[in-house]
Amino acid sequence: MRPTGPLHIGHYFGALKNFVEMQEDNKAFFFVADWHALTSDYADTSRINEFVDEMVLDWLSVGLDPNKCTIFRQSQIKQHAELHLLFSMITPNSWLERNPTYKELQQEISTKDLGNYGFLGYPVLMASDILIYRPNWVPVGQDQLPHMELTREIARRFNYLYGETFPEPQAKLTPAAKCPGLDGRKMSKSYGNGIFLSDTMETIAPKVKSMFTDPARLRKSDPGNPNVCNLFPYHVLLTDADKQNEIREGCKNASLGCVECKKIFMQSLEAFLAPIHERRAAITKDYIHDVLAKGNEVARKNAEETMRTVRQQMKLV
Amino acid sequence: MRPTGPLHIGHYFGALKNFVEMQEDNKAFFFVADWHALTSDYADTSRINEFVDEMVLDWLSVGLDPNKCTIFRQSQIKQHAELHLLFSMITPNSWLERNPTYKELQQEISTKDLGNYGFLGYPVLMASDILIYRPNWVPVGQDQLPHMELTREIARRFNYLYGETFPEPQAKLTPAAKCPGLDGRKMSKSYGNGIFLSDTMETIAPKVKSMFTDPARLRKSDPGNPNVCNLFPYHVLLTDADKQNEIREGCKNASLGCVECKKIFMQSLEAFLAPIHERRAAITKDYIHDVLAKGNEVARKNAEETMRTVRQQMKLV
Repeated sequence: MRPTGPLHIGHYFGALKNFVEMQEDNKAFFFVADWHALTSDYADTSRINEFVDEMVLDWLSVGLDPNKCTIFRQSQIKQHAELHLLFSMITPNSWLERNPTYKELQQEISTKDLGNYGFLGYPVLMASDILIYRPNWVPVGQDQLPHMELTREIARRFNYLYGETFPEPQAKLTPAAKCPGLDGRKMSKSYGNGIFLSDTMETIAPKVKSMFTDPARLRKSDPGNPNVCNLFPYHVLLTDADKQNEIREGCKNASLGCVECKKIFMQSLEAFLAPIHERRAAITKDYIHDVLAKGNEVARKNAEETMRTVRQQMKLV
Repeated sequence: MRPTGPLHIGHYFGALKNFVEMQEDNKAFFFVADWHALTSDYADTSRINEFVDEMVLDWLSVGLDPNKCTIFRQSQIKQHAELHLLFSMITPNSWLERNPTYKELQQEISTKDLGNYGFLGYPVLMASDILIYRPNWVPVGQDQLPHMELTREIARRFNYLYGETFPEPQAKLTPAAKCPGLDGRKMSKSYGNGIFLSDTMETIAPKVKSMFTDPARLRKSDPGNPNVCNLFPYHVLLTDADKQNEIREGCKNASLGCVECKKIFMQSLEAFLAPIHERRAAITKDYIHDVLAKGNEVARKNAEETMRTVRQQMKLV
């Protein structure tokens, strides 16, 4: 994950929840992609260290456990840069130019300059990040499938040129829970429509208060439709099943008003965030740095092992 | 210099001669650019180690002295790859696409696939190779001036974004002695028209015998024109001045035939190559590896010092 700001509950239900499950039965690596943050945010790096620490804090607070998985910071594992350079030599520009994310982002984002060499090549860096740990699979969202395909293509090309070295890792699509932003758009820091894992209930209260519900329901006495309500999907995620049914029925038959419904939501949110905030409060800066230092060491050892093979295969020794 | 095969006397008079002089009064770094060799020769790396050793052997044989300068192998200094990655984030593709060498090579070379990401970005790698030692100047040929300009542009952009870090190194154009290939074209390994520093006199004899001289001079009794002769420029480089005049006059007044002239050339060549071959014979593989190991260490220390500053400036620490 790129360290570009605090994580919100969309990140939790879209990724972190799965990460926490994965650490139980796998040799899992999770890293803060600070070099990747530079592909679009090279112009202002003043808060990058703060964002790195915050991201690890967010991870630890939801239950990623450094005794069960490896948590590290990309820029501390120089081997990624070496493999990126070597992969750059065998990756056709045409593969990068046809990358759908590249084209989309260039069209969508007009506030940043995305015409740099590193932005064109970020799937090459991504392939290095992945393949250097020779994984069987990578947990990604639907939008990352083209990058996974490119990663496999680079692995195949390397294996063809220099001999069998890398596996062709598969994408593991994580079950994507629907978690829109407070205004119904995608939850995103830049839209200002998110509930962050680090938000206090006091910060959250006015956000929830201002949420749109079913726009056709003007009075409590009007029956509502949970299927068009912005809030109801959150109940699906956070409120227990019995209560969910109660809410759905109460909304439809106009016995439960939106104000009351939001109160229940605040309670569900509080129950969800309480253990996260409790863990969070116990985590010091020193502990975060300690986690990273240990994780970096494990990652470096693994990465260097791969690079030894890579250099041998390419005769660069 | 890219390790793509043995060096010829064109390399000597175009570059090495100057390198040997430079080591006297400067803190000079000379490196075997094995990562750069991959930009065009990634498909077959089987001989790269052999080429690296041979190149260092060529350098040492002409008088580069590891006690006076630093001789190292690029791929052993991983910091170049890290700086390359960071520079990639701030280098516009347009700078690379308008690079005249890029366009020329793509048009000229049809036998190799030059459409790779790393080939587009080789000036970024070159800028890293240069700037990581924060030099005042770089000895280059005329054809490298666009790369030096790009290197300065990258330095300026980095300094602008992250604060003063790099100097803007100037190109030092080395006096280019005219040293055409045996057939009058540019001396080049791929044209098979070179005299290599490692060639024995036995290998050289038939090459010289087959050289074209003044094509209008069919018989010894015809007066010749040294200005259109392929061989005469070599006398300018290798034969002492008095003798040169004698040859020029003898050619013009038809008293000196081409066969005789080539004999004198062979003597000049032998005198030139004798000390080179003598040094060469005394150099073992172990010594070469020792020179590289020591040079790598010095280079690494210098490069790491720069990278510490770079990481601080970019807040990647």
